[in-house]
Amino acid sequence: MIEDKNQQLTPLSELGEFKLIEHLTQQFEIKHNSTIKGIGDDAAVLDAKNKQTVVTTDMLVEGVHFDLSYVPLKHLGYKAIVVNLSDVFAMNAEAKQVTVSVAVSNRFPLEALEELYEGIALAAKIYNVDVVGGDTTSSTSGLLISVTAIGEVKPEDVVYRSGAKPNDLLVVSGDLGGAYMGLQILEREKEVFKVNPNNQPDLDAYTYIMERQLKPEARKDIIKLLKDLDVKPTSMIDLSDGLSSEILHICKASKVGCDLYEDKIPLDPQVISTCEEFNIDSTTVALNGGEDYELLMTISQKDFPKIKANPNLTVIGFMTEENIGANLVTRAETKIPITAQGWKNFDS
Amino acid sequence: MIEDKNQQLTPLSELGEFKLIEHLTQQFEIKHNSTIKGIGDDAAVLDAKNKQTVVTTDMLVEGVHFDLSYVPLKHLGYKAIVVNLSDVFAMNAEAKQVTVSVAVSNRFPLEALEELYEGIALAAKIYNVDVVGGDTTSSTSGLLISVTAIGEVKPEDVVYRSGAKPNDLLVVSGDLGGAYMGLQILEREKEVFKVNPNNQPDLDAYTYIMERQLKPEARKDIIKLLKDLDVKPTSMIDLSDGLSSEILHICKASKVGCDLYEDKIPLDPQVISTCEEFNIDSTTVALNGGEDYELLMTISQKDFPKIKANPNLTVIGFMTEENIGANLVTRAETKIPITAQGWKNFDS
Repeated sequence: MIEDKNQQLTPLSELGEFKLIEHLTQQFEIKHNSTIKGIGDDAAVLDAKNKQTVVTTDMLVEGVHFDLSYVPLKHLGYKAIVVNLSDVFAMNAEAKQVTVSVAVSNRFPLEALEELYEGIALAAKIYNVDVVGGDTTSSTSGLLISVTAIGEVKPEDVVYRSGAKPNDLLVVSGDLGGAYMGLQILEREKEVFKVNPNNQPDLDAYTYIMERQLKPEARKDIIKLLKDLDVKPTSMIDLSDGLSSEILHICKASKVGCDLYEDKIPLDPQVISTCEEFNIDSTTVALNGGEDYELLMTISQKDFPKIKANPNLTVIGFMTEENIGANLVTRAETKIPITAQGWKNFDS
Repeated sequence: MIEDKNQQLTPLSELGEFKLIEHLTQQFEIKHNSTIKGIGDDAAVLDAKNKQTVVTTDMLVEGVHFDLSYVPLKHLGYKAIVVNLSDVFAMNAEAKQVTVSVAVSNRFPLEALEELYEGIALAAKIYNVDVVGGDTTSSTSGLLISVTAIGEVKPEDVVYRSGAKPNDLLVVSGDLGGAYMGLQILEREKEVFKVNPNNQPDLDAYTYIMERQLKPEARKDIIKLLKDLDVKPTSMIDLSDGLSSEILHICKASKVGCDLYEDKIPLDPQVISTCEEFNIDSTTVALNGGEDYELLMTISQKDFPKIKANPNLTVIGFMTEENIGANLVTRAETKIPITAQGWKNFDS
């Protein structure tokens, strides 16, 4: 949309920094009692009362984490909030506030920033969080968004990565690999577009996985579900970097090993069919794909009856003694060690 | 230092994202009881008990906020923390935690990031704050640092911009204009260096103002002093953008006007002499220079006896009814309206 030459666009230099921030943030209303003061002073003031506060921060960088040739700015704003809230939920906490800092080059008109903030506002509305601060500055090249998310949790409810015990069940929400395969489709269509800009691709077969990439959701519903089921996980982490590296984080922090069953990994039919089309192994995609923003947790075996009938949660393995290591038990029933791939942002 | 071709430098790609974060953050120790969990989980966990939490965030962008041709990376890391703590102090709060996110291009070797984090660690040590989270990612071009600072304050102690009343005294800590004039010296020396790289300039006459620019301090001591003097300001803000725009922020938030006396503005002799050398008006520099990170506050007249003998605090004016507006009373005793200049980062 920022390419539309027929629109009347407003250069950022017309507003200046203060007016720009005011313009972009005036839409944000305060919803929570714990937000004593939001935007408009040197700092926000919060009051979590008898709860603990969780704080997490994450950056999205143009050309590294997103490509504006196929990511709409509204989706990007939405995603920037969601990926941070996902970390709050991974502590078993309720998300309450966010701060948003944006660095942007002069090549973006005001209307582009408005679209970005529309997505931010939509996520804040849907996830019921207050936007309490931020910063808008220029950059010499691209667009960069840095979000800090803040949540509240009763001290007895907080779940760390470090609490898993041998024999605990390894459980994941939703299904895996969709965001990665959605990215493959978007990258392919970008190449097609370069060759023939008038081509109108039929992307109906990829709707789910493209949405997993472009408009991921954080599993606030799972935190509520766990409370309703009266299950407190022994450890939890969100799946931003792919199943294998997140499992290794839990194993390392909890000093345990793990047997992960390949045939238990939940995959959407669209992921399976797209993997076939691209001739990629779907297990590899689930293990290393990343950006699914599902929750990976361990639960005590005694809690198994409470979760076993639930379609949102899948048992994919169990924890072992540390010296066993973290292993994938393949369909052929061989055991292979799990290795971290993650996002290699610094590869040259 | 990143230009030294004789050093053995380590490309960031050798480590990968997880190891890089671990390497850079392993030096940080937790010092505060309120930091329940620091780096190493999805989010930090904090407990302010019966206090309120203040949260503020700020970004520093290469080519916009700093120029690495004369800013050492260690100083930059230090400054990135300090400018955020300054906002915490401006709420009359104690700074407790920071999160640090860094986006960096592959042109920086590991050793450069280590220097940056040395400065971050030094500021964390001197200001007694815990580094509880962060993110290190690559960027397509320069270096960008985003810091979120968190503080604690008793609900009855928090000071907003909005509490100033007519007849309150306008008070500033320290002296003004130094950071801006330090920048002028650094910019001049950069041009000299371009012409003659072997020139060894004598910068002794500019030590104070260069330090104000390169290694600013946040006025933690003033917050303690105010407590010791039993003075609670009616409003407060930190001086990041220059005196005039900060005065206007207080006037707008508090719905008051102001008479600022030109002859009361505290200036260091080095600022005055450098202004003369550059043929710039020192009042203009103090009003619009920015980056001094002093505290600007209003106090009730009844508190004047408590502060009047203190060399750290200068009364520079008083607040008036809103309809009088914000004015500078010049040495010639004429009144001219104060206008905001601030940082025009989006100027084209």
